[in-house]
Amino acid sequence: MDNKKSEKDLEASSRRDFFKKTAIMSAVALSGTSLAASEDDHAIMHHPKWGQTWGDPITKNLYGVPSKYEHNVTRRYTKLLASGNYRASIAVTPIHESEGIITPNGLFFSRAHGGVAHIDPNEFRLMIHGLVEKPIVLTLDQLKRYPSVTRTHFIECPANGGQEWRAPQFNSLQFSKGFMSCAQWTGVYIKTILKDLGLKPEAQWMLAEGSDNSEMGRTVPLDKVLDDAMIVWGQNGEALRPEQGYPVRLLLPGWEGNLCVKWLKRLEFSDEPWYAKEETSRYTALKPSGKAIQHFYANEVNSTVVKPSPEKPWTDLKEGDVVEIEGLAWSGMGTITRVDLSFDGGNNYVEAKLKGLVLPKCWTRWSYLYTIPKGFKHTNGKQLLLTSRAMDDAGYIQPTVQQEVDMMGVESIYHRNGIETWEVNEKGEVNHVQIRKV
Amino acid sequence: MDNKKSEKDLEASSRRDFFKKTAIMSAVALSGTSLAASEDDHAIMHHPKWGQTWGDPITKNLYGVPSKYEHNVTRRYTKLLASGNYRASIAVTPIHESEGIITPNGLFFSRAHGGVAHIDPNEFRLMIHGLVEKPIVLTLDQLKRYPSVTRTHFIECPANGGQEWRAPQFNSLQFSKGFMSCAQWTGVYIKTILKDLGLKPEAQWMLAEGSDNSEMGRTVPLDKVLDDAMIVWGQNGEALRPEQGYPVRLLLPGWEGNLCVKWLKRLEFSDEPWYAKEETSRYTALKPSGKAIQHFYANEVNSTVVKPSPEKPWTDLKEGDVVEIEGLAWSGMGTITRVDLSFDGGNNYVEAKLKGLVLPKCWTRWSYLYTIPKGFKHTNGKQLLLTSRAMDDAGYIQPTVQQEVDMMGVESIYHRNGIETWEVNEKGEVNHVQIRKV
Repeated sequence: MDNKKSEKDLEASSRRDFFKKTAIMSAVALSGTSLAASEDDHAIMHHPKWGQTWGDPITKNLYGVPSKYEHNVTRRYTKLLASGNYRASIAVTPIHESEGIITPNGLFFSRAHGGVAHIDPNEFRLMIHGLVEKPIVLTLDQLKRYPSVTRTHFIECPANGGQEWRAPQFNSLQFSKGFMSCAQWTGVYIKTILKDLGLKPEAQWMLAEGSDNSEMGRTVPLDKVLDDAMIVWGQNGEALRPEQGYPVRLLLPGWEGNLCVKWLKRLEFSDEPWYAKEETSRYTALKPSGKAIQHFYANEVNSTVVKPSPEKPWTDLKEGDVVEIEGLAWSGMGTITRVDLSFDGGNNYVEAKLKGLVLPKCWTRWSYLYTIPKGFKHTNGKQLLLTSRAMDDAGYIQPTVQQEVDMMGVESIYHRNGIETWEVNEKGEVNHVQIRKV
Repeated sequence: MDNKKSEKDLEASSRRDFFKKTAIMSAVALSGTSLAASEDDHAIMHHPKWGQTWGDPITKNLYGVPSKYEHNVTRRYTKLLASGNYRASIAVTPIHESEGIITPNGLFFSRAHGGVAHIDPNEFRLMIHGLVEKPIVLTLDQLKRYPSVTRTHFIECPANGGQEWRAPQFNSLQFSKGFMSCAQWTGVYIKTILKDLGLKPEAQWMLAEGSDNSEMGRTVPLDKVLDDAMIVWGQNGEALRPEQGYPVRLLLPGWEGNLCVKWLKRLEFSDEPWYAKEETSRYTALKPSGKAIQHFYANEVNSTVVKPSPEKPWTDLKEGDVVEIEGLAWSGMGTITRVDLSFDGGNNYVEAKLKGLVLPKCWTRWSYLYTIPKGFKHTNGKQLLLTSRAMDDAGYIQPTVQQEVDMMGVESIYHRNGIETWEVNEKGEVNHVQIRKV
């Protein structure tokens, strides 16, 4: 709104525009409560009990916490995802409760191989050495003196969805897709530091090593280092959380979570990869041939329907209600360009709308306004089979489950990004199914 | 990076680009520790004590909390900002620790007039009535069935900086500018709901009323309602915090914080404004004439230097070190277009660089690379006087302190957005000063 126009002009034109526009929302679902509906409603409106007592002083909770009524919104874990004990395991993000593209720090998925380390930032040191002219050991304060950048990126464990190569294991959005979160990261580009230290021409690979007791070691090709690799200390405007690697981690936008080494202690440059433990015995994809793919890095283009989900079904809706189907799409190789939605498990698609910010290697929201059919049955007479399919600007599209299994077999664990399906039954309940042949 | 090129081609071209670019960062400040510098450094690198014990299992803290080492990063309060007791007061955001443009929910500034209410979302009701065809009472679930939007906006108390009309009161960035925070908000446009309910042509104003015991009531002109006014339930990807109005608040992007009524209970449409208590006895600007301005709404264009600050000075730096000066800029009337920086209290300016996302009515980061002069003295022989000046796309620029006082006097409390100054003394300490005449 241009403040320099007269207020009256603005008011008149807004009102004309407002009444002219098609009332697309005139059929939005409401329970249709009118003002006279309920004595209880009136009591709540006029004399809510929380309005009749003092609230808390602002001196309480100088680091705030969620409402007690939100106690069910947490990370979750299961024995199925623990390697013997819960120090080598994952606690997954409640994606079904998510809004927008930021995961609040308390809900960011937590993955460790030897438990979450707690590091005194005053004792933290970052060593950068190997094929550099000037090797160095930095304190946190020294690291933070570099010019910083802030970028919004998801981090995804490449095992996200990896339980379901054969069939759906989790009738849950949180467990089937919650090995990922998205945040604003603040740190410094490694290439900025390298201009300072001087990279030797023979350098081709970088080892990143963590200082927790599992000492995660991963080799990163130099291209990625010189592209957008960052050393980060900030997560959504404050320090990293211990679960995300406080005080410093590596961030390789779009690349596997384990490559984004937490509790970072050193970077070493070399002319050869390291073939460390975590990139040979783990984080490789076993193909039906018996050989394993070792060098894959980016989480591929992917998507999911978020609303509805098994946790948050459509049981309160009825025929004729208009509802917003909503979901997420993301790609480690670039920016989401399009998301399609199917109601019949992938035979036919319509194009969904991208909502809000659309950024590279970042969660992207999509939506589609839909009218609930009778008995939640599609026009083909079958129960709704909701599925989304995303595309990125690197030219990739999600495969079907069958295409992916034909290519990768069922033993590769990682990088599963085939199209997933929710079935909506006649009551509006939502179940995780798979369409193996479309 | 286009994955379809050969890896070798990419590697060669990145490397050539890398070595060709001007090494602008070759003089970045580092304490210059080399690898051989310290036995302690080596001990930490090779045998950090946190790497020799198990970390925490991922089952701990299913809603995560910050590292214990971050215990100093909190909201803060002072008696100077309390109206008799701490239920009518404010706890301010530690801006000096901020990164990027998101304020994590636990640090979002907390302002209440009768204490922070705690509301059971099952008992929450939102009444929308008055000059609408179809008045309604909505539960939270019903409200959330509307198509949602997510937008990143700051919320600022109009008293931000209001302690300093006469002289600087707070030698602190947190207290002098911390009456604001920025987050991603999820909710529904009021205009979307109004298409459903039908607005009557005579409606010109909307009352928003809170349900906490202070029952904040503010009148909003219809233009703003039909523009970008939202009813929000989401804050950085989770539910609103109690301090920010859980479960539902009004959000008027760019407008005074109190207008963004928290713990919302009703919206009523009328042909006249209400002149409620909080918009007559409070939140009006008393001019030297003795009359008060009643109808102002948007927080005007503003900025601050964040790095350095009184809390985080330059005492660890010396002559020749290259450091990144950094700050925030924001405007309730539009998008930041430019930020200038001065080293001599506003006589001469250079243009700073905008960093990261630049969004309307949103915090915007800016930065400038600077070489520390001897004794922190500017070329004019005086101690550095760092000041920033922002411009927005509505055509406004921050006034000087003197210009603002000449126009508004010193009693108006609110909407103070004059240019602020930090003086850097010979030790690198940073103090809040004011330049009254430039």
